[in-house]
Amino acid sequence: MRVKVVDMEYALPRGFRFAGVHCGIKTDPNKPDLTLVVSDAATVAAGVYTRNLVFAAPVAVDRERTPCDTIRAVVINSGNANACTGERGLEDARRMAELAAGVCSAEPEAGLVMSTGIIGEFLPMEKIEKGIASAAQRLGDDADSFHAAARGLLTTDTVTKVSARSLTIGGKEVRIVGLAKGAAMIGPNMATMLGLILTDAAISKEDAQALLVSAADDSFNCISVEGHTSTNDTVLLLANGRSGTAPLGGDDLGAFSAAAAEVCRELAKSIPADGEGATHLITIEVDGAAGRREAFEIAKTVANSVLVKTAVGGADPNWGRIVSAAGYAGVSFDPAKVNLQVNGIPLYESGTPLQFDDEAASKSIAASRDTLIELQFGEGRGRARFWTTDLTAEYIRLNADYHT
Amino acid sequence: MRVKVVDMEYALPRGFRFAGVHCGIKTDPNKPDLTLVVSDAATVAAGVYTRNLVFAAPVAVDRERTPCDTIRAVVINSGNANACTGERGLEDARRMAELAAGVCSAEPEAGLVMSTGIIGEFLPMEKIEKGIASAAQRLGDDADSFHAAARGLLTTDTVTKVSARSLTIGGKEVRIVGLAKGAAMIGPNMATMLGLILTDAAISKEDAQALLVSAADDSFNCISVEGHTSTNDTVLLLANGRSGTAPLGGDDLGAFSAAAAEVCRELAKSIPADGEGATHLITIEVDGAAGRREAFEIAKTVANSVLVKTAVGGADPNWGRIVSAAGYAGVSFDPAKVNLQVNGIPLYESGTPLQFDDEAASKSIAASRDTLIELQFGEGRGRARFWTTDLTAEYIRLNADYHT
Repeated sequence: MRVKVVDMEYALPRGFRFAGVHCGIKTDPNKPDLTLVVSDAATVAAGVYTRNLVFAAPVAVDRERTPCDTIRAVVINSGNANACTGERGLEDARRMAELAAGVCSAEPEAGLVMSTGIIGEFLPMEKIEKGIASAAQRLGDDADSFHAAARGLLTTDTVTKVSARSLTIGGKEVRIVGLAKGAAMIGPNMATMLGLILTDAAISKEDAQALLVSAADDSFNCISVEGHTSTNDTVLLLANGRSGTAPLGGDDLGAFSAAAAEVCRELAKSIPADGEGATHLITIEVDGAAGRREAFEIAKTVANSVLVKTAVGGADPNWGRIVSAAGYAGVSFDPAKVNLQVNGIPLYESGTPLQFDDEAASKSIAASRDTLIELQFGEGRGRARFWTTDLTAEYIRLNADYHT
Repeated sequence: MRVKVVDMEYALPRGFRFAGVHCGIKTDPNKPDLTLVVSDAATVAAGVYTRNLVFAAPVAVDRERTPCDTIRAVVINSGNANACTGERGLEDARRMAELAAGVCSAEPEAGLVMSTGIIGEFLPMEKIEKGIASAAQRLGDDADSFHAAARGLLTTDTVTKVSARSLTIGGKEVRIVGLAKGAAMIGPNMATMLGLILTDAAISKEDAQALLVSAADDSFNCISVEGHTSTNDTVLLLANGRSGTAPLGGDDLGAFSAAAAEVCRELAKSIPADGEGATHLITIEVDGAAGRREAFEIAKTVANSVLVKTAVGGADPNWGRIVSAAGYAGVSFDPAKVNLQVNGIPLYESGTPLQFDDEAASKSIAASRDTLIELQFGEGRGRARFWTTDLTAEYIRLNADYHT
């Protein structure tokens, strides 16, 4: 496994401790499968969750508990999603949260829980119980502990996904760090995206929830690999106030929100960027749509077009597939005002395909892992950005070869 | 090319003549690329068209003219879609329709036109003009002429797609025949579905339009290969009244509508069934949803799930992907009341995965070209059926290998 090396000792928010251990859910003893994060004091916690009607037990537990200001610990396991597991799954999720809270001698409700992995199987609770006890022994606030934690939630990821920012507010340094897993390549049953944002900022639970919803809308809700919404998708934000500032409001809250949004965006983008079987990270930028919603729907529809994704995989500057995908996004626009560029090369203008150097456009796609698709409409000021991967025969092989 | 052999001399509706010729749009001289159908008398004509905002010139022309009762001829070319061709494309489409109507010495507006093939290029009008003249010389009402016509609209199809029904009304035989092309594998630029339903029934233009909309909703709008809506999708219904019955109404109209709907369904299903690179025709049957719309949205979402399609390609009885795709269809249901069977084998019941023989379920998928996914909900009486293909590495290769 490649591990992204980020030197962030200085940036870890104060008051949190981390551990990642192997407890036996995954068969490979070198792969951590349990992450524990504890806060020295009760923290504000906010959450955003999958909109799938079929959601996993940990989602049910966390959704009930957030937003709040009483959380002490978060436990995450990988290898088993605790989804479609009924009443027993719910009990197991609550028990996991309780064990995590117990590490801080806190009430059972002071714990939150996330799971990712195969669905339809009960959690191996004995292993998890021992894993949490073992993680409790290893908690640390150093970079090694943090990176062990970042690895404990990975499944098919090939790199750890972390991001950090800091800003100065009222003479104090406020720190934000985020970790995520996902899901560019799909595991045995399910793609799941998990994110955990930790900060020592002092904010109210209401502000935390509002800023997390807004940041997720511009980041985690703007990525797709194959358009499938998982049973377990969860992003949590924990804010413990240990930076020592007064509770944030006004411009300070705005500056903090912007920094947190950047962390979310960086984490989100790292998910399609880590596509096994994928050879391109595709960025779709829509401008000039009637409004934000319209821009978002167009960007998402282009991102989820199998034909567009396949064309990029084949280095094909196929303006027809892109423009016609926009045309069935279900939002209104005048086709005669549409412009399109791929990697900066104009392919289509005012509703008409341009003469362009086909070979050069193809080479620009083949030559880089990043492909930029820009669409402008003549309707208004609506903008959106979406990230996805290409679709390759290797992806199909990884997702179809069941009996091998 | 395999050609489906259907003995239907007796079933061709009276009063229509057919031709299919090669006029040079396609390079292979053995492949017809122009189809002409004329009616001895003015016919009722109805149409349903792509909902894509980016639609081709022939769609614009036909949409303006239907429903009506003055049509004499339909001309169809393959190899060039006349899409994204601006004002000149519109002129070309009108000219094609005019030339076809001219074969019957009818007014320019008595012609309809359909095109399929690459987009963004102007039609080779000189070739088309000669092609229409040549087709006019070969018009016939025999099976050979009909099959030449059925071949003239094909692009990447490997079989002709025809269907016929007849029924007796008031002692007279009423005949319906349909031909279609589509698009299970995608050509250089675009998947397009075209359909032409011909009947000697006597019906009003209003009834014709209403029954075509309804039949298309249960057939052509219930198939997908990769979820892409083309710029050119068109289904036309021509009814010339030559069966000699009185204008149909009441139960007679109902019986005729049911037969026409069967023709549409048979044609529609033949499109995903003809998937190059596809190894399965997947039928998704949803029952017990709150209403028809809800059932349709669920069936369509499951059909368009890349993960579901890839799982079927890999003979993986992956209930998790199916159930969770239903969960993000955007319609409300109680997950605890969901049942699922694949090829008749129960995999999931009352919201819980069942113990089932994994190997046997996988073998049942691998052993047949047809896969049946049945989902029941406990919400109401809403039913829908959707057809799609699996997704294989071969499909990706066919759609991505641009520079070969």
